[in-house]
Amino acid sequence: MVGIIMGSLSDLKVMQEAVDVLKEFGIAYEIDIVSAHRTPEKMVEYGKTARARGLKAIVAGAGGAAHLPGMIASLTTLPVIGVPVKSSNSIDGWDSVLSILQMPSGVPVATVALNGAKNAGLLAVQIVGTFDENVANQLADYKESLKQKVAEMSLEAQKTVA
Amino acid sequence: MVGIIMGSLSDLKVMQEAVDVLKEFGIAYEIDIVSAHRTPEKMVEYGKTARARGLKAIVAGAGGAAHLPGMIASLTTLPVIGVPVKSSNSIDGWDSVLSILQMPSGVPVATVALNGAKNAGLLAVQIVGTFDENVANQLADYKESLKQKVAEMSLEAQKTVA
Amino acid sequence: MVGIIMGSLSDLKVMQEAVDVLKEFGIAYEIDIVSAHRTPEKMVEYGKTARARGLKAIVAGAGGAAHLPGMIASLTTLPVIGVPVKSSNSIDGWDSVLSILQMPSGVPVATVALNGAKNAGLLAVQIVGTFDENVANQLADYKESLKQKVAEMSLEAQKTVA
Amino acid sequence: MVGIIMGSLSDLKVMQEAVDVLKEFGIAYEIDIVSAHRTPEKMVEYGKTARARGLKAIVAGAGGAAHLPGMIASLTTLPVIGVPVKSSNSIDGWDSVLSILQMPSGVPVATVALNGAKNAGLLAVQIVGTFDENVANQLADYKESLKQKVAEMSLEAQKTVA
Amino acid sequence: MVGIIMGSLSDLKVMQEAVDVLKEFGIAYEIDIVSAHRTPEKMVEYGKTARARGLKAIVAGAGGAAHLPGMIASLTTLPVIGVPVKSSNSIDGWDSVLSILQMPSGVPVATVALNGAKNAGLLAVQIVGTFDENVANQLADYKESLKQKVAEMSLEAQKTVA
Amino acid sequence: MVGIIMGSLSDLKVMQEAVDVLKEFGIAYEIDIVSAHRTPEKMVEYGKTARARGLKAIVAGAGGAAHLPGMIASLTTLPVIGVPVKSSNSIDGWDSVLSILQMPSGVPVATVALNGAKNAGLLAVQIVGTFDENVANQLADYKESLKQKVAEMSLEAQKTVA
Amino acid sequence: MVGIIMGSLSDLKVMQEAVDVLKEFGIAYEIDIVSAHRTPEKMVEYGKTARARGLKAIVAGAGGAAHLPGMIASLTTLPVIGVPVKSSNSIDGWDSVLSILQMPSGVPVATVALNGAKNAGLLAVQIVGTFDENVANQLADYKESLKQKVAEMSLEAQKTVA
Amino acid sequence: MVGIIMGSLSDLKVMQEAVDVLKEFGIAYEIDIVSAHRTPEKMVEYGKTARARGLKAIVAGAGGAAHLPGMIASLTTLPVIGVPVKSSNSIDGWDSVLSILQMPSGVPVATVALNGAKNAGLLAVQIVGTFDENVANQLADYKESLKQKVAEMSLEAQKTVA
Repeated sequence: MVGIIMGSLSDLKVMQEAVDVLKEFGIAYEIDIVSAHRTPEKMVEYGKTARARGLKAIVAGAGGAAHLPGMIASLTTLPVIGVPVKSSNSIDGWDSVLSILQMPSGVPVATVALNGAKNAGLLAVQIVGTFDENVANQLADYKESLKQKVAEMSLEAQKTVA
Repeated sequence: MVGIIMGSLSDLKVMQEAVDVLKEFGIAYEIDIVSAHRTPEKMVEYGKTARARGLKAIVAGAGGAAHLPGMIASLTTLPVIGVPVKSSNSIDGWDSVLSILQMPSGVPVATVALNGAKNAGLLAVQIVGTFDENVANQLADYKESLKQKVAEMSLEAQKTVA
Repeated sequence: MVGIIMGSLSDLKVMQEAVDVLKEFGIAYEIDIVSAHRTPEKMVEYGKTARARGLKAIVAGAGGAAHLPGMIASLTTLPVIGVPVKSSNSIDGWDSVLSILQMPSGVPVATVALNGAKNAGLLAVQIVGTFDENVANQLADYKESLKQKVAEMSLEAQKTVA
Repeated sequence: MVGIIMGSLSDLKVMQEAVDVLKEFGIAYEIDIVSAHRTPEKMVEYGKTARARGLKAIVAGAGGAAHLPGMIASLTTLPVIGVPVKSSNSIDGWDSVLSILQMPSGVPVATVALNGAKNAGLLAVQIVGTFDENVANQLADYKESLKQKVAEMSLEAQKTVA
Repeated sequence: MVGIIMGSLSDLKVMQEAVDVLKEFGIAYEIDIVSAHRTPEKMVEYGKTARARGLKAIVAGAGGAAHLPGMIASLTTLPVIGVPVKSSNSIDGWDSVLSILQMPSGVPVATVALNGAKNAGLLAVQIVGTFDENVANQLADYKESLKQKVAEMSLEAQKTVA
Repeated sequence: MVGIIMGSLSDLKVMQEAVDVLKEFGIAYEIDIVSAHRTPEKMVEYGKTARARGLKAIVAGAGGAAHLPGMIASLTTLPVIGVPVKSSNSIDGWDSVLSILQMPSGVPVATVALNGAKNAGLLAVQIVGTFDENVANQLADYKESLKQKVAEMSLEAQKTVA
Repeated sequence: MVGIIMGSLSDLKVMQEAVDVLKEFGIAYEIDIVSAHRTPEKMVEYGKTARARGLKAIVAGAGGAAHLPGMIASLTTLPVIGVPVKSSNSIDGWDSVLSILQMPSGVPVATVALNGAKNAGLLAVQIVGTFDENVANQLADYKESLKQKVAEMSLEAQKTVA
Repeated sequence: MVGIIMGSLSDLKVMQEAVDVLKEFGIAYEIDIVSAHRTPEKMVEYGKTARARGLKAIVAGAGGAAHLPGMIASLTTLPVIGVPVKSSNSIDGWDSVLSILQMPSGVPVATVALNGAKNAGLLAVQIVGTFDENVANQLADYKESLKQKVAEMSLEAQKTVA
């Protein structure tokens, strides 16, 4: 099971893509709003019980001074995947990116692109797939589907330009 | 009393200036290393007991993905003054600045300049001085001393150029 | 009483949130337009008489080359809270942030997030609350209300995703 | 086993920390120089055979226009951990960070801080630890050791300031 | 013949200008979608066969962590012209620019402005024109036409202001 | 006469170049340390009396949250030339540049490059030269001397490379 | 007389404000489109004859890789005022600002804020006013009118908030 | 023949690498100091006669507000390769990069990495190689030599870590 958390309900429109990926790969997930700054005790509880609850990885999204991914990483030994969200109070996303990415030695966060919730979901799938051959095979199929889409785009592009 | 905390011993060379200011103004302080990412429980304890311990303000310094000031602010109703430290793992200080400054609505951090620990100390003094006339008078004297120093620099500059 | 000033009427749409917070906490305030660059004498007068007028803190918002918060800080021993406003003449807010945040040693400005007027108001409340237990209790209640809102958002998020 | 690769021998002084972490946790690794731009065929071969060779995760470091982590991620279904290296031809590290972090949807790279090779190693350990309880226990011990170090730093800081 | 490739169909609205320039100068071109991250093998094939297929230059556009231009440059001895595209997943274009521009020594990419596909096309024409006097003459005529347009704008400006 | 002011004695090592240019062109100058934040009253006095004292232009240098040039501009109708100084408390000079350059409509500052005191001096000379033909002729001679220096560098470069 | 030039007709919507200021102060001006990159000979001619044509200052606006102000400055001894225009091909205005501001020693450009054409016009007026008392008096009146506008805004703000 | 020019003798330490590449490939070159801002007429002359003098491409390096590459491109139909130089008066190289890269539509500059003179030389070689099979073969050999160097670095890295 993968945990998906975010600092505010307004992050859900971005984080939905992580949910969709996990659904697509048939991997169980739980979702919650956990705010580092408004619910610090809930956050501590969430992080400390995550492994025992059976989670394999945690996807955490936040924007602005985005402390949730890093704080969760301080509270668990599970891999934490951070999604910098370009929220309304962010300076073009730079604050979200830097406050998630630049973690000190000892407490890593696996950071993905700004608003990159889909890739966060895929990274969680890849982590599960490291030890689950069935998931690994699905990932291989997914890679093939990406190629197929590019082939279709090629035809479309050539038709457009001609 | 004012609390001075920082994420790592390596921040002390910057944060010492906050200590010096409080000493200069005769205001009691306590100092500690409190790491958001390495000692989250200590941090929670520190924040939650701060007001009851008699603190009037907390000066918190950190670098990189600097979560300490914001997390402490989430745990207390005291004013928290954040010092972005340009630590060795920082990208020119931008990460330190943005991850302290860009707090979400509801949980403010009073941010000072990069490595601005002296001003953080002065801000703590000003907060104390808001209700303590003796401290306010000291601050007025301090302002006069700044003027005096500029007057001395004027003479020095004119001597240099002449 | 808390002073709320800003460089231009166009800043009011951002600064209104500071007003609202002070109203919500029942703290008296005065509001004015004080432009560092268009009314320097008014600014000097404002800063020099602020403490004697009974102000406990000053919230100052400005955008672009935002000199108002720092200049007011040079003219009073009260804590000055600076709000970088992302005004129409600002380069993505960076100028507003840096010209308020990066004050030289000796003259601090407590800077909040870009457009963070609500947090500026809260910081003023916290400063008052440092010595006023009633206000401190209101702040504790406010913190509880934030938690409650997150709990409501959790339910909403789970309903949305399910 | 974990793969550690980098674009140039000059990256090794940064990437050595990833090696050291894996050694510390007793996890097998292989190391190689694989340049996206100078040895594209070797890179393709490396990525396509990685899972079959028994790797569980790949740590890839590069600087400047840092294409190695993202390209390896395009060639394998394993989780790829990217280390932005602040190499001599980098613009303050921004190019390294952005060209690793900002991967398009479908091909994630788990990015760590600039020069964050130690955290990249830890992230690889965490991925292994997701399914290996022994490694998970080591990670829990490691977290305890971080706390211990902070306790020692606290004493040192208080001694210094007193 | 000039090759025009891009990482995604969504780049075509920008890259169309390169096509238009080549048409205007009567230079043959081929167009394709080649994704570094979704079709790495197609990309390798494209790059390795480019010169033998008779291409004289390759225009490659991509956004975000834009690896296509640099990777193609690693696979051919032809001049590769990179167009940083400000795609929807880009941080204001900085990632696109830096991940194309900052190539390591040994593998150049001729980078043009953000979304500068028209100039990329013109650069390809200039390269052809280096050894083709007819094309060079067309370029000289084109330069004259630019002057003519400015002359027309001068009249328009003076009419507007008067 | 031209006024040269700066916020701190430490700016003099940069601002000396403005002095040197005025000396070279035989234009009278006065020099002083005027700190916006430490001596606001002196600054107001300086600005308000500048024209009456016979100044034709004012060169003002400052670093960090650099308010001196803009504040002086608010206090006089003379042209004010701002020199962003990359002082020790500056974030790579960006704060100095933006807080001088981004003045609101109505109060211009003629900003020169970071640490560009020499050009600030030349700009003051050009302003004087607008109405003083003798100075204009000196400026024309100066332009010729720049050409001569390039000619000498050409020879040196060709000798070095040969 | 003041010259107002810009690189493209599309800059006129920004540069119009410079025209309006000169009209308001009754100072003669000429306006033209002069493109550094499309009409280099026209630009050389414009710069070399500017003083002889009776110009006292030149206001030059351009965007992107904005070479017009600096090149004109290389061709005349008149003060050149540069307006960085945030044109459609600009990266958030940073290219426009830096390519105008960062002139090498010996060839100054008096740079104003991004899109700051109004201030460019005022700076030209101030330069004329340096030696023309009548213009200086108008500038003093203008400063008074700014104060008056702030006074009106004060009333409006207090009415809005009350 | 390839032209190599730069704005100042101080750029030669960077630009020397372009010279070295051309020597290595046995391609004739001429070198000169041509300053856009100090010798505009020489620059115009250089650009207008370049093709007639037999040049096939021009490599132009400059720093700060770097106008030389773009201005030369406005004066010739030859491909111009721009090298942003991180000179002493540059803001971390951003000004050099942006003022060369962000050319307007119609006048391209083939920009390489900051201080990327070696790649500029290689790009000139590639342009020559487009129509010269002998040079193309040399480029293919060069690519092989890059692979060989990586193979040597692999051995060295494995020896270091073991």
